[in-house]
Amino acid sequence: MRATYMYGAGDVRVIDVPDPALEQPTDALVRLVQACICGSDLHPYHGMPATPAGKPMGHEFLGVVEDVGADVSTVKAGDLVVAPFAWQDNTCDFCREGFQTSCRHGGFWAADGIGGGQAEAVRVPLADGTLVKLPVGVDSALLPSLLTLSDVFGTGHHAAVRAGVNPRTTVTVVGDGAVGLLAVLSAKRLGAERIILMGRHKDRTDLGREFGATDVVAERGPEGIEKVRELTGGDGSHAVLECVGLKPAYEQALGVVRAGGVISRVGVPQYDEGDIGWNLFGRNLTLTGGPAPVRNYIEDLMPDILDGAIRPGLVFDRTIGLDETPDGYRAMDQREALKVLVRP
Amino acid sequence: MRATYMYGAGDVRVIDVPDPALEQPTDALVRLVQACICGSDLHPYHGMPATPAGKPMGHEFLGVVEDVGADVSTVKAGDLVVAPFAWQDNTCDFCREGFQTSCRHGGFWAADGIGGGQAEAVRVPLADGTLVKLPVGVDSALLPSLLTLSDVFGTGHHAAVRAGVNPRTTVTVVGDGAVGLLAVLSAKRLGAERIILMGRHKDRTDLGREFGATDVVAERGPEGIEKVRELTGGDGSHAVLECVGLKPAYEQALGVVRAGGVISRVGVPQYDEGDIGWNLFGRNLTLTGGPAPVRNYIEDLMPDILDGAIRPGLVFDRTIGLDETPDGYRAMDQREALKVLVRP
Repeated sequence: MRATYMYGAGDVRVIDVPDPALEQPTDALVRLVQACICGSDLHPYHGMPATPAGKPMGHEFLGVVEDVGADVSTVKAGDLVVAPFAWQDNTCDFCREGFQTSCRHGGFWAADGIGGGQAEAVRVPLADGTLVKLPVGVDSALLPSLLTLSDVFGTGHHAAVRAGVNPRTTVTVVGDGAVGLLAVLSAKRLGAERIILMGRHKDRTDLGREFGATDVVAERGPEGIEKVRELTGGDGSHAVLECVGLKPAYEQALGVVRAGGVISRVGVPQYDEGDIGWNLFGRNLTLTGGPAPVRNYIEDLMPDILDGAIRPGLVFDRTIGLDETPDGYRAMDQREALKVLVRP
Repeated sequence: MRATYMYGAGDVRVIDVPDPALEQPTDALVRLVQACICGSDLHPYHGMPATPAGKPMGHEFLGVVEDVGADVSTVKAGDLVVAPFAWQDNTCDFCREGFQTSCRHGGFWAADGIGGGQAEAVRVPLADGTLVKLPVGVDSALLPSLLTLSDVFGTGHHAAVRAGVNPRTTVTVVGDGAVGLLAVLSAKRLGAERIILMGRHKDRTDLGREFGATDVVAERGPEGIEKVRELTGGDGSHAVLECVGLKPAYEQALGVVRAGGVISRVGVPQYDEGDIGWNLFGRNLTLTGGPAPVRNYIEDLMPDILDGAIRPGLVFDRTIGLDETPDGYRAMDQREALKVLVRP
């Protein structure tokens, strides 16, 4: 089959690899219908050292089950399913506590002998704990929105959940990438009435407004902080959803959060050390977030997509075939595209 | 009157200063019955630059109201009262949200023209929002325990509250100072069944066991982390209450917290930068805590002291007169005393 591999910074290729096959009785084999490129795929695209063997790419997909192992009971051949960006048993204590990305028996796509999601097919370990059946057909117009359940929507939702967003919280979202925009949608869905979006790409912040942002702040750094403080009576907002992962975004979050408030990060931090001294402590601020346990959220978020109340799939502004993924990376990297959908 | 001033590192003196007097109609004048020395007083005792004018000291006290301004309605002359380590209106939005240490109109003792609590008397601003009447007499044996409501107990309680301690959480407390020991008591009071105390002073950890610690780990650094992980099936504990404020204590906390867990700090951090990269993010950890809004907790914690269910005052292991405060600082600094009670 064809699959997307990265060989180093900027070097993405679609190559022929052996077809995946069932290996464990808990496996399922899924033929992909839709996949996509993630903002986090751009981190290796910028900095991955040259790797002659290449690395499979992709961790967001939905598709049709082709075959299942003997122990799989919740999905069967022919089912249309969505997969979270991590696989898990969904029964261990960490999963039951809602931290599926820390599952005792789970792991991630494109690692440890499991293929990536920018490919024609994937072997899915622990299929009962990982896959969720979609109650629509493969030609449903809802598929792009349902695909966001695999990562980007669940991640934005995680930011809002961990920040405790509710109708009484004011919210600032740092970052106008796809995760940031869906963090806006998630905050709105959880009842927030005041949502400030910090971003400087008008086409993106316009979509943010459509998703529920009440204010847009294009300025960054001290000016951006000043602007958000002005908009919040000088105090900052209760919840700050940091959807970038770079240190200046954390510093911005620290500057715009209200005393007693929460900074919730879902952008994978590209830094280790940060300010956690008096600036964080003195105002009883909370720093939280992490890799979203999206498996925990799929059933919760799906109904609003099915009934048309929300359309998270609007973050996809370009659709390509599998052989075009190198250009998809390039387009996202150059900000020609917000998020690229791949039809294998 | 006599009052304790610090003039530089290691230089504590008891001097004569003018008697405080009512200045605002919202003030109360309190003659102190009991006060104490705080672990946080040792930070300037170690590092304060020489200051010819000196700085008043002390922020924990209970005493008898001597006089009140015209606008004070909740306490009157003759009342025995306890004061939190910060003064506040207790009505602004931050106070109503439970963050009294961020009160819009409040402040701290021994600053901005308000005296310190290691003195004979103190002018209390915003007396209605600050003072809480104690339903006992000045000769009650409960006074030392009630005195802990002004800071050290409320601070340990804050650590446990912010960490979300409940009967289902395992808890590790980092630090066997008075705050750490009362964090143990607080975790126990909130229902925690497994409480690991990290400390290496046996007389203190013995008191920690009396307060509810089920395990004591004397090792520090990687060995201490290893030991706590052993005690928790390799996973670490849900809640880690960091009651020290030094960077190694934070690093220890990061090492012993379970995926999805909370590090709650109440020791004022003596550092700015710390590890908040993948080590914190990757396991969905939460970092929280800050200066305890003890005013928020006084009414909640007092009944258990009054009915004898808990005795937080056991942290006081030395009692001195006001003129002996310099020696009290020395004794706490040299760990001769855990916490020193002062009778002005």
